[in-house]
Amino acid sequence: MIHFSINKAVFLQALNTTKRAISSKNAIPVLSTLKIEVSKEGIGLTGSNGQISIEHFISVQEENAGLLISSTGSILLEASFFINVVSSLPDIVLDLKEIEQKQVLLTSGKSEITLKGKEAELYPRLQEVAATKPLVLETKLLKDIINETAFAASTQESRPILTGVHFVLTDGTLKTVATDSHRMSQRKIQLDKAGDNFDVVIPSRSLREFTAVFSDEIETVEVFFSNNQLLFRSQHISFYTRLLEGTYPDTDRLIPKDFNTTVIFDTANLRHAMERARLLSNATQNGTVKLEIQNGVVSAHVNSPEVGKVNEELDILAVNGEDLMISFNPTYLIDALKAVGNEQVKISFISPIRPFTLVPNAEGEDFIQLITPVRTN
Amino acid sequence: MIHFSINKAVFLQALNTTKRAISSKNAIPVLSTLKIEVSKEGIGLTGSNGQISIEHFISVQEENAGLLISSTGSILLEASFFINVVSSLPDIVLDLKEIEQKQVLLTSGKSEITLKGKEAELYPRLQEVAATKPLVLETKLLKDIINETAFAASTQESRPILTGVHFVLTDGTLKTVATDSHRMSQRKIQLDKAGDNFDVVIPSRSLREFTAVFSDEIETVEVFFSNNQLLFRSQHISFYTRLLEGTYPDTDRLIPKDFNTTVIFDTANLRHAMERARLLSNATQNGTVKLEIQNGVVSAHVNSPEVGKVNEELDILAVNGEDLMISFNPTYLIDALKAVGNEQVKISFISPIRPFTLVPNAEGEDFIQLITPVRTN
Repeated sequence: MIHFSINKAVFLQALNTTKRAISSKNAIPVLSTLKIEVSKEGIGLTGSNGQISIEHFISVQEENAGLLISSTGSILLEASFFINVVSSLPDIVLDLKEIEQKQVLLTSGKSEITLKGKEAELYPRLQEVAATKPLVLETKLLKDIINETAFAASTQESRPILTGVHFVLTDGTLKTVATDSHRMSQRKIQLDKAGDNFDVVIPSRSLREFTAVFSDEIETVEVFFSNNQLLFRSQHISFYTRLLEGTYPDTDRLIPKDFNTTVIFDTANLRHAMERARLLSNATQNGTVKLEIQNGVVSAHVNSPEVGKVNEELDILAVNGEDLMISFNPTYLIDALKAVGNEQVKISFISPIRPFTLVPNAEGEDFIQLITPVRTN
Repeated sequence: MIHFSINKAVFLQALNTTKRAISSKNAIPVLSTLKIEVSKEGIGLTGSNGQISIEHFISVQEENAGLLISSTGSILLEASFFINVVSSLPDIVLDLKEIEQKQVLLTSGKSEITLKGKEAELYPRLQEVAATKPLVLETKLLKDIINETAFAASTQESRPILTGVHFVLTDGTLKTVATDSHRMSQRKIQLDKAGDNFDVVIPSRSLREFTAVFSDEIETVEVFFSNNQLLFRSQHISFYTRLLEGTYPDTDRLIPKDFNTTVIFDTANLRHAMERARLLSNATQNGTVKLEIQNGVVSAHVNSPEVGKVNEELDILAVNGEDLMISFNPTYLIDALKAVGNEQVKISFISPIRPFTLVPNAEGEDFIQLITPVRTN
């Protein structure tokens, strides 16, 4: 029979982290609840949607938590309802006590709220990652890699494997790649202290949640692998995600080596020009913008018979090679430019019908993106 | 054939004000456009949804507008599309020139965007308010009155007149009242320089838009009336709204004079307690909270057989009169407490089945609200 008191703000922050894994409209009703497990060491909170599970542990050692445990046990409570109730409590401290029949009494100031819960045994066992030797990564670096690649994954379920991001560690090199078959983004880094080689496909949705859950104050994260699950772990948070099954396509062969035209742009200027072009390309049949490279002048053109047209000479820093006319979906270029951390971007073309590449115009970063053009008449 | 150049930020702000009247899904297609009228004096922008019309005038005299008019005329442009295009332009100045066949060419920096427009003659004539002697009100006071009353208007179309707010000027006293038949809010003020008596019902939705459009920097607003329209006018903005037709019910007779129980609360404390109670009352059949006044102790109670219960002793500043048990929808009380500007609120009861009143516990403010209780067993 659980009984503890805790600082409301600390408890609420842990609840809100855990809640990120919980979906209110889950096919498995018990997953709309939050599991609270109270031991002598502290409080464990668990939330899951079946794909992602988050465990948040608040230790009795944490001074600002003001955690006092009188009695241990576990219970399930409706997650979003419970969190709303906790956040509404009047005092800075709350007392949670389990009373008869899986009910909890919350006391805070003069307010007494009784909530009905469920037996903890009803909660499924979701985590199956053995705590072997982990890969340790800087949180910020991992989040950067995710932000540089995950957006390029597919959102369509027609080829489920493409909704994931491919992480491959080979002899100290971590290669991360995502593609929806229209565009591709690949980032490589060298790891100083790499562990065993691995090859996994992580759902891009899980990775986006990971970036939201792990704040920048968390310096490093431990990564554990099993057959079909992966665990990101920090001091307080264990974040589990299922892995995607199947073979990821060979993307290395897609990356061209030789080009006929190369242009260096200011990243922000090009992005804004593409955002203007997209306003009108959205109203055209094929949704494309035409890029024209002629005698050292680069310009963008959209012609929508319904709405109007855009003609814009683009600011460039350098242009080399053959003249070219190429059409593409400006949204892919805008997304790609958002991912480029550098102020300058180098775009390299082969022909109007072959994918073109984007790389930051800087030394030392192994980051390449690919966009497939659209054939127009 | 229009031709002018203008500071982009100033133009955009005026466009966004005008856009507040424009609905993208209007039954009259031409109302999705914005009318631009260029005269030697400046630029007039007009948007309307048929109920509300907003005209914004940018004068050539305004220094920060940097308005240079080369040629006058008028045109209609798709409002939200045009505004998106303007906000995407690269330079701080833009040039708008009408070219052949009701097309405009927007030039800014190296960007040239052509947009198709329509003839200004297609726009309906919506404003019909004669510029007679206006009533002049402080903008802030008028917005306060609206915030204190408009929320209590009905959102149901079953009795259209109740979706409005009743403004009555009688011999220098402006009475403003709204009710949805479950609750009522009435504010009275004395005007120093009142004009002719009037009695109008203004749609509450129009009043909410008014509070959004007229910023607090605008010190005073002129109010003009006609048979079925009202005009709020400041230096740059003319805001027209249709009035509701029909007779507003007599609300004066609803306000009780004699009470059996009176309690003074801290406004914020009571509001937070009601917000907690509402979390659980939402899960009950009749959605009510029970207030119990007994031997000088005031407490709130909700019992949801499904979810749990709340019992809370409320902080009070004073209590007088008979003991009482009364049930009501906590949302009505929360809304009412939000409208009370004062730190303390006096609530007065007659019996469990008669409406109770809220007034700020302060001298000099003529502001009263009424909430109807719910009969429970």
